[in-house]
Amino acid sequence: MNTLEAIFSRSSYRGTYLPDRVPREDLETIMRTGLAAPSGCNKQTVSLIAVDDPALLHSLRSAVPYAVGDTAPALILVLTKRVCAYRNQCFCAQDYAAAIENMLLAIVELGYQSCWVEGYITDSDHLGHKLADILGVPQEYEAVCYLPVGRAKDEPTHVTKKPFGERAWFNGFGNGDGRA
Amino acid sequence: MNTLEAIFSRSSYRGTYLPDRVPREDLETIMRTGLAAPSGCNKQTVSLIAVDDPALLHSLRSAVPYAVGDTAPALILVLTKRVCAYRNQCFCAQDYAAAIENMLLAIVELGYQSCWVEGYITDSDHLGHKLADILGVPQEYEAVCYLPVGRAKDEPTHVTKKPFGERAWFNGFGNGDGRA
Repeated sequence: MNTLEAIFSRSSYRGTYLPDRVPREDLETIMRTGLAAPSGCNKQTVSLIAVDDPALLHSLRSAVPYAVGDTAPALILVLTKRVCAYRNQCFCAQDYAAAIENMLLAIVELGYQSCWVEGYITDSDHLGHKLADILGVPQEYEAVCYLPVGRAKDEPTHVTKKPFGERAWFNGFGNGDGRA
Repeated sequence: MNTLEAIFSRSSYRGTYLPDRVPREDLETIMRTGLAAPSGCNKQTVSLIAVDDPALLHSLRSAVPYAVGDTAPALILVLTKRVCAYRNQCFCAQDYAAAIENMLLAIVELGYQSCWVEGYITDSDHLGHKLADILGVPQEYEAVCYLPVGRAKDEPTHVTKKPFGERAWFNGFGNGDGRA
């Protein structure tokens, strides 16, 4: 699969996963793609924990009353350190989002499915803190997202997006093919 | 090139670009990959403007006293709309970062180079506002990044990153191969 195929076939999978174990080698490859993403001023604010231990997966799921990915045989927890990169600017959200996107594409490339689960764990309930505690994460790191990883049982579906011409133009806002 | 090759060969190119024009078809493909990225609650907060008009490129460059990409025959300006996606959470930084990462990978796949230029235009100088004004961008959008696009004249280089074991673990923070 080339990069464009992976990008256009990726979707947020909210179905059931097959129980097949994900080889450690694949989890490591996926994490390496995340760490290969660029980061503001190369601060490398992202860290990752892959979880495939059934008892730990059960503990993590018990802490999050949200069903997406709860049948997946593995997940990757995304951690960030909120440090300044340039003057007083912090790019950690951009850093971890780029890392997540790389991992989502690698997951597709390797034949798995996933879904970016963020809002439910960074909300005012602070579920991310509970996940971090279970995995022994120090307080200077924040758990911001997890990605289930596994083979899909159901057919992945795609959301509807606005037409290209409503979101992208040439040489000026709202322009079609013409030059400004 | 498969997805993993694109991910591991991507780097932030700060060298000189060849003057060869980037076909509109390629710019459109790159923008389509950006728009194919996931967004929080599918809010699609990202919009894009590709610029290949020489006079416009000159105007944009005159507004940014920063040399990276100033020889590139095209650039893509990334716009965001800061809207809430879930409760009071706004994921627009994550949305545009995922879109940018997709585009950086597509750029590599198509044989071009680029560099994520963000901090210089979103800083307190508000250079992004000047770029947005030149391209007629309405006030509800914010210009947050541009990506030069073109063929490299120089050999791309890679930054040094921390070892895998300092940023990624299995089944617990700081764990190596063992299970927690």
